[in-house]
Amino acid sequence: MLNHGPELEIGAIVFPGIDQADLTGPFEVLSRIPSARFRLLWKEKTPVCDVNGFVLTPDETLSAAPPLDVLVVPGGRGQEALMDDEAVLGFIQAHAARGSMTLSVCTGALLCGAAGILRGARATTHWASHHLLGYFGAIPIDARVVVDGKLISAAGVTAGIDGALRIVSILRGGELAQQIQLMIEYAPEPPFSSGTSSTAPPDVIAAVRASYGQITEERTLTARRVAARLGIETE
Amino acid sequence: MLNHGPELEIGAIVFPGIDQADLTGPFEVLSRIPSARFRLLWKEKTPVCDVNGFVLTPDETLSAAPPLDVLVVPGGRGQEALMDDEAVLGFIQAHAARGSMTLSVCTGALLCGAAGILRGARATTHWASHHLLGYFGAIPIDARVVVDGKLISAAGVTAGIDGALRIVSILRGGELAQQIQLMIEYAPEPPFSSGTSSTAPPDVIAAVRASYGQITEERTLTARRVAARLGIETE
Repeated sequence: MLNHGPELEIGAIVFPGIDQADLTGPFEVLSRIPSARFRLLWKEKTPVCDVNGFVLTPDETLSAAPPLDVLVVPGGRGQEALMDDEAVLGFIQAHAARGSMTLSVCTGALLCGAAGILRGARATTHWASHHLLGYFGAIPIDARVVVDGKLISAAGVTAGIDGALRIVSILRGGELAQQIQLMIEYAPEPPFSSGTSSTAPPDVIAAVRASYGQITEERTLTARRVAARLGIETE
Repeated sequence: MLNHGPELEIGAIVFPGIDQADLTGPFEVLSRIPSARFRLLWKEKTPVCDVNGFVLTPDETLSAAPPLDVLVVPGGRGQEALMDDEAVLGFIQAHAARGSMTLSVCTGALLCGAAGILRGARATTHWASHHLLGYFGAIPIDARVVVDGKLISAAGVTAGIDGALRIVSILRGGELAQQIQLMIEYAPEPPFSSGTSSTAPPDVIAAVRASYGQITEERTLTARRVAARLGIETE
């Protein structure tokens, strides 16, 4: 393997109701960086369940975590319960204030927004929450991965893989990123062209939007409240 | 959501040294089937570590698992230690003998091979182990996902997502598969064309092959031994 480089401390926040793939996609890529250490972090070290029942075990508590070179902030329906959580938002804020890199995946961007680190930044998130980015002072970008300085944001769920490969490329170079892509045989062949809200058939979009109805409404109310707290003016 | 259908029992074998993404990719897709229940299975219910240290917690033991509609067999370096394991191979064999569906991901195909269920079947696996399929009596196919009756095989690691979407399509129809693809925003944009051994640059392939040198040698010796046990003639 090339590009060993210095040790790299990577952490991801896990929480009840996380979407596990927002985490496990980036883990698969970033944990393959030689001399990287990837820790799952939460308030306690007791296991948490993802939104579909997948059990995740934190390696360390947020308060005992070392300074991180990369923080991964995943999303999932459980993100909504953390939008006023001082321990979580303070952790994200302090990490960003040290000038270290953050990868938000899916609605993890909303947590970053509530922590105030999206202000003035170009960013993306899951298509069904994309209209909320403005409440956090972000410049919404319609892209799968957005790199704005130390903030890398990835769109919905599986976009975390693409975002993580970009991070490997930035931190350790394209040679290693390509090696990792080959190891995980990442040459996707989705069986349909239904992966975005601009390519999926209208009835498919309508059904998925309907299934998100309540959580999207809750997220919108929360985003408005957070905007007021952050002093961000929205229409 | 459409296509509720009858309840679906899904299980995946987890084991020490599994590659977590071989499991978590299919979990992300299949656990979204309405009325599906997805269990992680192992000999004991104590947590196991994946090849890069990710902690996975079994939901149920192999011996207490209900009859499954779909069995996911993931790979990873730890697969090698199970190639003569009667409990694991017997479980795979008994599942297939009931006529139920199996999804092998990555080198999970080698476990299926050692269980004897690849005999005469078209199949694929991770590119670095693809030459071993013949030892198990399989017909090696150079494809990302191969469907041969009740056996669905996916190539390396991330191909499990594509394989799982195919299974949703087969079991519950393309409408639901497209909804799930949209939910997980699966419209990949790999930053390089390095995802297969036919598209990656030669130096990238050489570096990755070198890192796989020892495990590939071990897998080859094991495959020869298993072929002899299964009575499969190879040159």
